Amino acid sequence: MSSHFGTLFRISTFGESHCKAVGVVIDGCPSGLKLTEADIQTQLDRRRPGQSRLTTDRQEADRVTILSGTENGVTLGTPIALKVDNLDQRPGDYGDMATIPRPSHADYTYLAKYGIKASSGGGRSSARETIGTVASGAVAAKILTEKYGVEIVAWVSSAGPYRATEVDHQTISRAAVDQNDLRCPDPETAEKMRTLITSLKEAGDSTGGIVSCVIRNVPAGLGEPVYEKLEAKLAQAMLAIPATKGFEIGSGFAGAAMRGSEHNDPFVMKEGGRLGTITNNSGGIQGGISNGEPIHFRVAFKPPATISQPQQTVNYAGTSQVLQAKGRHDPCVVPRAVPIVESMAALVLVDLALRQEARQALHFDS
Amino acid sequence: MSSHFGTLFRISTFGESHCKAVGVVIDGCPSGLKLTEADIQTQLDRRRPGQSRLTTDRQEADRVTILSGTENGVTLGTPIALKVDNLDQRPGDYGDMATIPRPSHADYTYLAKYGIKASSGGGRSSARETIGTVASGAVAAKILTEKYGVEIVAWVSSAGPYRATEVDHQTISRAAVDQNDLRCPDPETAEKMRTLITSLKEAGDSTGGIVSCVIRNVPAGLGEPVYEKLEAKLAQAMLAIPATKGFEIGSGFAGAAMRGSEHNDPFVMKEGGRLGTITNNSGGIQGGISNGEPIHFRVAFKPPATISQPQQTVNYAGTSQVLQAKGRHDPCVVPRAVPIVESMAALVLVDLALRQEARQALHFDS
Amino acid sequence: MSSHFGTLFRISTFGESHCKAVGVVIDGCPSGLKLTEADIQTQLDRRRPGQSRLTTDRQEADRVTILSGTENGVTLGTPIALKVDNLDQRPGDYGDMATIPRPSHADYTYLAKYGIKASSGGGRSSARETIGTVASGAVAAKILTEKYGVEIVAWVSSAGPYRATEVDHQTISRAAVDQNDLRCPDPETAEKMRTLITSLKEAGDSTGGIVSCVIRNVPAGLGEPVYEKLEAKLAQAMLAIPATKGFEIGSGFAGAAMRGSEHNDPFVMKEGGRLGTITNNSGGIQGGISNGEPIHFRVAFKPPATISQPQQTVNYAGTSQVLQAKGRHDPCVVPRAVPIVESMAALVLVDLALRQEARQALHFDS
Amino acid sequence: MSSHFGTLFRISTFGESHCKAVGVVIDGCPSGLKLTEADIQTQLDRRRPGQSRLTTDRQEADRVTILSGTENGVTLGTPIALKVDNLDQRPGDYGDMATIPRPSHADYTYLAKYGIKASSGGGRSSARETIGTVASGAVAAKILTEKYGVEIVAWVSSAGPYRATEVDHQTISRAAVDQNDLRCPDPETAEKMRTLITSLKEAGDSTGGIVSCVIRNVPAGLGEPVYEKLEAKLAQAMLAIPATKGFEIGSGFAGAAMRGSEHNDPFVMKEGGRLGTITNNSGGIQGGISNGEPIHFRVAFKPPATISQPQQTVNYAGTSQVLQAKGRHDPCVVPRAVPIVESMAALVLVDLALRQEARQALHFDS
Repeated sequence: MSSHFGTLFRISTFGESHCKAVGVVIDGCPSGLKLTEADIQTQLDRRRPGQSRLTTDRQEADRVTILSGTENGVTLGTPIALKVDNLDQRPGDYGDMATIPRPSHADYTYLAKYGIKASSGGGRSSARETIGTVASGAVAAKILTEKYGVEIVAWVSSAGPYRATEVDHQTISRAAVDQNDLRCPDPETAEKMRTLITSLKEAGDSTGGIVSCVIRNVPAGLGEPVYEKLEAKLAQAMLAIPATKGFEIGSGFAGAAMRGSEHNDPFVMKEGGRLGTITNNSGGIQGGISNGEPIHFRVAFKPPATISQPQQTVNYAGTSQVLQAKGRHDPCVVPRAVPIVESMAALVLVDLALRQEARQALHFDS
Repeated sequence: MSSHFGTLFRISTFGESHCKAVGVVIDGCPSGLKLTEADIQTQLDRRRPGQSRLTTDRQEADRVTILSGTENGVTLGTPIALKVDNLDQRPGDYGDMATIPRPSHADYTYLAKYGIKASSGGGRSSARETIGTVASGAVAAKILTEKYGVEIVAWVSSAGPYRATEVDHQTISRAAVDQNDLRCPDPETAEKMRTLITSLKEAGDSTGGIVSCVIRNVPAGLGEPVYEKLEAKLAQAMLAIPATKGFEIGSGFAGAAMRGSEHNDPFVMKEGGRLGTITNNSGGIQGGISNGEPIHFRVAFKPPATISQPQQTVNYAGTSQVLQAKGRHDPCVVPRAVPIVESMAALVLVDLALRQEARQALHFDS
Repeated sequence: MSSHFGTLFRISTFGESHCKAVGVVIDGCPSGLKLTEADIQTQLDRRRPGQSRLTTDRQEADRVTILSGTENGVTLGTPIALKVDNLDQRPGDYGDMATIPRPSHADYTYLAKYGIKASSGGGRSSARETIGTVASGAVAAKILTEKYGVEIVAWVSSAGPYRATEVDHQTISRAAVDQNDLRCPDPETAEKMRTLITSLKEAGDSTGGIVSCVIRNVPAGLGEPVYEKLEAKLAQAMLAIPATKGFEIGSGFAGAAMRGSEHNDPFVMKEGGRLGTITNNSGGIQGGISNGEPIHFRVAFKPPATISQPQQTVNYAGTSQVLQAKGRHDPCVVPRAVPIVESMAALVLVDLALRQEARQALHFDS
Repeated sequence: MSSHFGTLFRISTFGESHCKAVGVVIDGCPSGLKLTEADIQTQLDRRRPGQSRLTTDRQEADRVTILSGTENGVTLGTPIALKVDNLDQRPGDYGDMATIPRPSHADYTYLAKYGIKASSGGGRSSARETIGTVASGAVAAKILTEKYGVEIVAWVSSAGPYRATEVDHQTISRAAVDQNDLRCPDPETAEKMRTLITSLKEAGDSTGGIVSCVIRNVPAGLGEPVYEKLEAKLAQAMLAIPATKGFEIGSGFAGAAMRGSEHNDPFVMKEGGRLGTITNNSGGIQGGISNGEPIHFRVAFKPPATISQPQQTVNYAGTSQVLQAKGRHDPCVVPRAVPIVESMAALVLVDLALRQEARQALHFDS
């Protein structure tokens, strides 16, 4: 496994679907930060299953407990261990899995990797693992907000064939996103998505979607060329989220069809005496380093692999089988993926911010 | 900086545009591998500027020297240092840069990060840095080929508005790719791309493009969930290449519009008694771990920022300026990016292969 | 903080004196290993306070719970989270500390580092933190024993002025060590130590001591030159244990006074056709790599800083104060340090073993 | 291999005895530092062989070249590659080694590890590898001196049976140390050492010794508990130097025989309003964190394994052999080890300083 992430703000997550608890240890959180369970619970609640009729019927309270690292509601600078107990475990739901690897799920590859079949299949690959990411991401985000005023807002920009209208990167807020349970700030498109997802749920099918994200007020200078460029770390972080298939930043794939003369972002002096750019095809990053403009990117999610329609496949022995899954799963993960994307972004940024602070502290004015 | 990459096969690159040499130290290369400069030079030649009329006029021989780590043409297991001298340095070409940050280039962000203006601007962000990547990637690729029969082939699948026809993932070869200097295995589209690029070069403009890549014969089991999933490491590696704006694997962004019932890849018994999949929307990876099917992905490159058309922008003081660059640069980087994409992929895979070998060696059959 | 250790077998510990729980997340444990709480509890019991009249009066049950990473008593290859609840918390015992930094304790330096005074002072520096080390070390040791037959045995070789007679490195066992609560396998010297420690406890004073350790059946080839040589990693690991002041391996400091002609260990063919050495001044390591001979080293522990005698010192403001500590503490830590030394050694070895297995798997016979 | 060291100031060294060049890549050096080859050459000259009649007769100029990372004598913040060409290569001197592993040298263990016999045996384990350490350590030391006024001074405190008188930690300087070629600031003892070493050289024998080191003006707060405590990183760094057998800090092994009431370092207000300690048994570190007092430690070196006396041993096949080495080697390494110890200390400190600066920059005053 590689369940750790970060160089100075370093997380180490744990937990599968059916163990006693899932959680995370945060090593390197600055001291003096006011932090209680409530700061973390908000994002966990946005992530948890059963929060709306669009998601899985599984009900998981997902209450976080701080085991260490704070005293009187303030961080000590020592490791912060966060734990969420697993309450609703029903391994029995996964009966056929012992002999049939589920198509496009991780049963087969986990067996290839670990040589062992867990009752929950690729249990560690389940969305439940993301609790540790979201819990630690909430801490990271709080640091970024309090130190730099960073704002991270993600939303559902597409589901199946429906694509939301463009949002204003300067003003979009989590409150606006949460106005519907699709987390799509375009109400009209959200309604179409709802209809689609509801019908897919009944049909035992699923759909993919896209989560967009904007990050405002990132100080210029974050990102560690060459191999930890800001967009490279964001790409890694986003593709580490279950079910993701693509990442694009700024102009993205569309930029590949553009000319330099239209793609280049000319500089201009902005208010506060800050050098900024008129357009933002760069997505807030140039040469792997933030330039102070809003960072914006999109993450593609495939349709969930677990569907309740019968599927023609083979068992481990290679014999033809019809698999009919019984587990309770989301027909579309993107609404619940919104806080995961935000959390991953926060984890990337806080680590790079710490590294840049170290550099600046030892810079020589020669 | 973060010029190192990998956990067990670990590279550390160095060099800017105008220093004495660029290169890389490889730590963790297995011993006993036959290795000479010729093994490395091939890919460097595919990367170097001036190789065809489509690229920059700069002529750089880019001859690699092995400084350490081999004896009698065999690796010792000790660090392999590779060096390429910088011969053709003309810092004078970058005159205006002292006062005007080039739009969509790294001059401004490098200054924000390091507090210093180098004569070559964001010199470390230049494509010249990729020599270290390509040189070490050639070593990584040789290991993968000799141990597992891995084949990594990348090609230009789009440039500007032109998109090549689909290629056969099972048969596409580097020889086929190199049949034209566009590295586009669709000759008809290649001609259109050539015409476009030639005209853009004359017009002082540039275009973006897409590089596609397929990796065959990857053993099942590679990839370290959660944060170093195979697709996550590939995404990081690709977005660390200069000028990249997007990464997608398997079905990619198109998969976000699909239904689970069409996206899922049913299992089937393949020749050799290996469990495989009928379709490959997963792109050879499930749950972050290779499943033995071909890995295929695409990388979007923006148009090069350096164009010779006059650009309206501001200088560091915020005063309006018209910038007219004089440096020699590629109007389209994707043909030269092909070996860089292949090299990055090899670096990702060899490191994950070593980690999986360690795991398997200490697996318990309980 | 840097509460993680290891490259492939990687631990991340958490917990201070007065938080809800202490513990550790193990990332990279091989799959298929039989593992239950009982495998871990044994060493925790040897470490815990209150186990004999020689140690602190604090009673801490220190019962470990496996939160994740196993199913049906077998490791899954996923992260193993281990937790020990804090039951006996009496922060009130540390009253004066708010204003007076305890001499030779970590109160002052933790304040300098983190800018915050925790109720338990340098709480993370307390011996309680070592629970995570010991718990994960027990897992590491089990792997080493089952795969390679490695045996790690530490013992108290000195306390205050008393030095135990030499033990036979080939036969010393944990059972022999545990025959008395001093963990000194020289009964006569153990009695003298007991008398000393008992009298020091009454006098409110403390004493230092030395823990010796031997590791048998380590395969030749472990250790990663240059900066992670086997002795370098052991030195780091041992000096990371609270209260340690020195580390020496093989001939150690005495070797500095020897001549090469007497210090060199001539080779000889040993049973099983293994090349071994006649003497073992090298301590089982040459050039940073294990040679198959027993590894033996010694670790110096200072006397515990917390004594109940009045101490003349100053408060944070610099005003003279007499400090009289009230906490319950060990007059001599070495008996309880024995399992900590063994655990640290196991953590070092299992990580290097995994790295060497990876190397060997990809070695080329050229 | 593990030829890299450091988290934020990260070095990656390369080179064996008989390759084209040895050197190092420094990743993470702050920008704006004035740096030329001369800054580095001084310590390389103190390390190089042939500098006095006490050392090996091999003459190696060891001239360093900066390949990258500076412009106009100022660091750019990009990787600094340093190279020293190998001029005096005589692999022929090592004739017997192909069949006979040299006692207490690394021939056997390098073969066990890498499965390959290099012409220089454990070439990477040779003292020649330390050039990369010393070159990068010189850069680290310059940063520490200019930012914090740190002074690092090491000296020979013992060789064979001779032990120098105590030096004053507050005043000892490199100039004083270099007054004789023994680098022993006690002239009388230095003479005895010289006589011993001269006679050993003639007799084809060697002797061990001890290097002591003091570091002044280290800011309080450096060191990353738990596993990267300052003394733990120093221990790792020192035991990574070839031929080292032991490390002790502050009271060291002698402290193990002391009582808490005599070992504790009472606090006192020092000039400049800094809280300091009256005694310094802690060696400048408490709880793994620097306290502002001088850090002082000692490193034990075994006698060099290469002696020219005939040695009774066996060849790889196990047959008895008399080995008579012909290479040119030092009868005592400690004078040349002095700059290596200083360099390693600087590498440890600069990395921990960067990490502490990052922490302090994001500390919250709550």
